[in-house]
Amino acid sequence: MSLTVVGSIAFDAVSTPFGVREKMLGGSAVHFSLAAGFFTEVRVVGPVGEDFGPEEFAILEGRGVNTSDIERVPGGETFFWQGHYEYDLNTAHTDETRLNVFGDFEPKLSEDSKNAETLFLANIQPDLQRQVRAQSQARFAALDSMNLWIETAKDSLEAAISEVDCVLINDAEVRQLTGESNLARAARAVMDLGPRAVVAKQGEYGAALFTPEGFFALPGFPLEDVQDPTGAGDSFAGGFLGYLSGLDDEPDQMDLRRAMGYGTVLASFNVEEFGTERVTRLTREEIDARFELLREMISLELTPR
Amino acid sequence: MSLTVVGSIAFDAVSTPFGVREKMLGGSAVHFSLAAGFFTEVRVVGPVGEDFGPEEFAILEGRGVNTSDIERVPGGETFFWQGHYEYDLNTAHTDETRLNVFGDFEPKLSEDSKNAETLFLANIQPDLQRQVRAQSQARFAALDSMNLWIETAKDSLEAAISEVDCVLINDAEVRQLTGESNLARAARAVMDLGPRAVVAKQGEYGAALFTPEGFFALPGFPLEDVQDPTGAGDSFAGGFLGYLSGLDDEPDQMDLRRAMGYGTVLASFNVEEFGTERVTRLTREEIDARFELLREMISLELTPR
Repeated sequence: MSLTVVGSIAFDAVSTPFGVREKMLGGSAVHFSLAAGFFTEVRVVGPVGEDFGPEEFAILEGRGVNTSDIERVPGGETFFWQGHYEYDLNTAHTDETRLNVFGDFEPKLSEDSKNAETLFLANIQPDLQRQVRAQSQARFAALDSMNLWIETAKDSLEAAISEVDCVLINDAEVRQLTGESNLARAARAVMDLGPRAVVAKQGEYGAALFTPEGFFALPGFPLEDVQDPTGAGDSFAGGFLGYLSGLDDEPDQMDLRRAMGYGTVLASFNVEEFGTERVTRLTREEIDARFELLREMISLELTPR
Repeated sequence: MSLTVVGSIAFDAVSTPFGVREKMLGGSAVHFSLAAGFFTEVRVVGPVGEDFGPEEFAILEGRGVNTSDIERVPGGETFFWQGHYEYDLNTAHTDETRLNVFGDFEPKLSEDSKNAETLFLANIQPDLQRQVRAQSQARFAALDSMNLWIETAKDSLEAAISEVDCVLINDAEVRQLTGESNLARAARAVMDLGPRAVVAKQGEYGAALFTPEGFFALPGFPLEDVQDPTGAGDSFAGGFLGYLSGLDDEPDQMDLRRAMGYGTVLASFNVEEFGTERVTRLTREEIDARFELLREMISLELTPR
């Protein structure tokens, strides 16, 4: 089983009430890969500059992520994002974005990346997502997106959505995309475009899963210490799709629910420290222990009185 | 087992994108009582004016609510609230409030109301809540409150909180009350005042329960048709405390979780139609069927692959 992810590989500068980092490894494909790498063989596709060196490759390869499809652009600089969070940590405020090599990104998949059974199209321009989807042989493909593409490339985004099995976006974006304020109706409208699963990410409130068979939701894992929310949504997607990719068969409803649980757990570890710091030294045992805690936390199944 | 609730009894004028009602029965004690009446004997304490007639009493008594402690003020008019909701139904905008007889309310509990084993102090001025608590013999007392009292009577509110077993307020109010943006920490700070349970209501995202033993959360029941959110929080509290009041013993952790489920279910029925319209003709069978649906929706307990 293997999983290909296409998306941004970045250096982030992040400031939160709990600390500052001037330059650390980030980007949606990175956070996704480090989470998914616990469950399956991950291949990451994306461009970096000459400033992306052995230390950064080592973080990815330390998790078993295959980096041979990372394109190192001669003379280029890696995508750079700078942002900060206020006291409540809920909203990322972007201070600077330098696309650098990411601005001219034309995804090229190797044969091995094309042949991965699972594909994740992280948040990039939807026409690029479609180009990647067209190259891929994946039997299960998912995408993330954002308000920018809903506002500037809605037709392309709807076409991209029609070509995947699963959409993972913020709940506000499910509403914005469909013009439907009721989330259950909005999710159904997304499924009407083609996907058989919609995951509405709800920040600290957790995430909701909509499928033709039904509804499932998980709260965010309760944490008293959150240091940096950057990458939480990508870590969620990595836990979710990584778990699904590791299965032998087509996912059924309970597989999708368990995948939601692993997504929730990976996102919770991600935010405990800055950037990739916590996930880099995370173990599968810690993941499984927190998954069991989460399962106990949401259970109504003990014998009622 | 019996439960006394003290709070507002009102006429509401409500406008939502799905309809308008010029004058309908409302108020926190009313929504609470109609929900709690499915589980336990409810006594409602609050003032009404001469405009509150047999039709309104009949709605309450039709659910078995004891109205003998409703004080009908000669020459008075009943508390009136007018509000509207925008397209997303998330925020109530108040257009007019006439306190009328509620402005001079001095709660007087009959012996039967004093002796109820469970007490709910709906959202009223916290010094009034304390007066009621001092009269009551309840072995389990809970209160609701709002941002107004946090801003204008914080010391009184903290004293009132120290005298109850459970607090049910919006999650934003848990944060505002404690000055702590992290919800888990904020809930712990509320428990440090005295209560052994904090329910953070989260609107469409559901509700979270914090106790010294742990954390539990439920999503809002997913509905494609929501007509009027007015009274959802009070219906939640009614389902929650009504269920607890109907138990023979002190509630344990699983009782509190099941109570969260009944709160979620009652809130979901409440918002399906305007005011008390849906709950008035609701049956216990419908409640139990939706509770089972909810339990299935949040389950991770089926055999994993």
